[in-house]
Amino acid sequence: MKKLNRDHVVYTMSRQHAPVLTIKDGETVTVHTYDCFRDRLVPKDSSFDSLRFDELNPATGPIFVDGAEPGDTLKVEILRISLADMGVTEIDPDFGCLARLVKAPAFKRLPIEDGKIRFSSRLSLDQKPMIGVIGVAPADREIPTDTPDTHGGNMDCTQIKEGASVYFPVSVRGALLSLGDLHACMGDGEIGGCGVETAGEVTLKLTVIPGCQKPYPVVVTDSRVMAVASCKTVDQAWEKAVEYLHDYMVTETELTSDEAIMLQSIAADLSICQTVNPNKTVRMSIPLRYLEAYGYRQK
Amino acid sequence: MKKLNRDHVVYTMSRQHAPVLTIKDGETVTVHTYDCFRDRLVPKDSSFDSLRFDELNPATGPIFVDGAEPGDTLKVEILRISLADMGVTEIDPDFGCLARLVKAPAFKRLPIEDGKIRFSSRLSLDQKPMIGVIGVAPADREIPTDTPDTHGGNMDCTQIKEGASVYFPVSVRGALLSLGDLHACMGDGEIGGCGVETAGEVTLKLTVIPGCQKPYPVVVTDSRVMAVASCKTVDQAWEKAVEYLHDYMVTETELTSDEAIMLQSIAADLSICQTVNPNKTVRMSIPLRYLEAYGYRQK
Repeated sequence: MKKLNRDHVVYTMSRQHAPVLTIKDGETVTVHTYDCFRDRLVPKDSSFDSLRFDELNPATGPIFVDGAEPGDTLKVEILRISLADMGVTEIDPDFGCLARLVKAPAFKRLPIEDGKIRFSSRLSLDQKPMIGVIGVAPADREIPTDTPDTHGGNMDCTQIKEGASVYFPVSVRGALLSLGDLHACMGDGEIGGCGVETAGEVTLKLTVIPGCQKPYPVVVTDSRVMAVASCKTVDQAWEKAVEYLHDYMVTETELTSDEAIMLQSIAADLSICQTVNPNKTVRMSIPLRYLEAYGYRQK
Repeated sequence: MKKLNRDHVVYTMSRQHAPVLTIKDGETVTVHTYDCFRDRLVPKDSSFDSLRFDELNPATGPIFVDGAEPGDTLKVEILRISLADMGVTEIDPDFGCLARLVKAPAFKRLPIEDGKIRFSSRLSLDQKPMIGVIGVAPADREIPTDTPDTHGGNMDCTQIKEGASVYFPVSVRGALLSLGDLHACMGDGEIGGCGVETAGEVTLKLTVIPGCQKPYPVVVTDSRVMAVASCKTVDQAWEKAVEYLHDYMVTETELTSDEAIMLQSIAADLSICQTVNPNKTVRMSIPLRYLEAYGYRQK
């Protein structure tokens, strides 16, 4: 298994970045990542003055996957997420949808141990590790790592977790995958702009699926299949997520278009992934077994 | 226990409607309801011609609760939802966000038995009964039963289910509760406009909580607390749901405003209830035990 340390980070996803690692189709790699503040709020004596705004959302990479060509799909299996022992969360009078209620920036260092996150002496939260930033290089643009789009990026989707597979459209040779911004947990919506931000190590298996590109990210967990959409507004994003999942259902199963709409209405769930990035993100998910009943087979 | 049959339905929620039943504070009542099409698509030989568009979303009621006064809260405990043995779902070229893909109206009769909904010979769905329309009379307006707002109404919230308690602001004497539009199951978003629509019987306990009105509906299940917001757009509704839950957390617990925002960011979930009614509905929910750690006690 290959390893990639975090000396090599990017702040955009772009075909211009030279790969820092090349791996074979089907190979496994462990990637070390910073938290979204480049770990600057982790030290005990840290303050907001430690933050550097040109260093937000570092993503380790990019990784060149041998054999990935434009028009293919990159399957990213998340085999393991291992977190650091300290997380950080932050609120700011200039950020998030309750910013008007925040008088001064504030952050909280949150110890992570035994699967729990210590919020205070009164409350420990359940750990639900996830990857905030993960994506491939777009065809013709350079997209900041804080921005989600059809290439992936800062989707902040709580379902991009251990055991999930994420499918990306490959737009450039080698796909050029980068990732970072782990969260020990996060609420769907991430309304203040932060989950429990943490560094960590992610073990991934990368596989090229030739010639079956969907122009949007798809996530499959052990129980659900979902399409992820990111747009300027949540209203635009939920409409896209509905459209994407419908497209996926009619092309990947034997369901008719009408049946797919009915099943989406009665059994698929719209959740707001995040509301704070330059594009907002919504996912629509449906139970895996409902699609398998109509011939769906995970690739 | 009182019983209310469905001879008495309303198509608006309004202080103008004469109560059809008066019950005591703390009393239990079983209410029989039609499905949202007034059961017109249930008979085997039914067709779209059977539908009457002045008969959509009938709600049984209103019920006058003794002692409920403006400024109070009405607590509605949903003790039991018992469904009919047939559900219906429908799609339409004039309705829902994938309407452009629907060539002609179509509906499907879906047998309900043993906790399952038979979608086809290939697929049975898990039953998750819920109440689509439930609310009280607004102070000064007459609101159609198809429309959700701060009085409740057509919220189509999947968490309004057996075992949940729903808290409504009382705006008129007696509260004037009405309900209908049961779903055997529904996806969060209800993107085509229907869940599995069905008739049934709901057993409720109604309690007046004096003088602690929140100007929005709150739902508490066995594991989560949530605020529900309905606005013209999903973007407006999610912002309101965030604001409502924040207000609820800082008034009902010992959390500071900053702590509440942090907890909302890292642990509270935004879900889209429905996208097809005249107002769109979003809920934000947080684990009950996280609030209990800060002194929350359910009333």
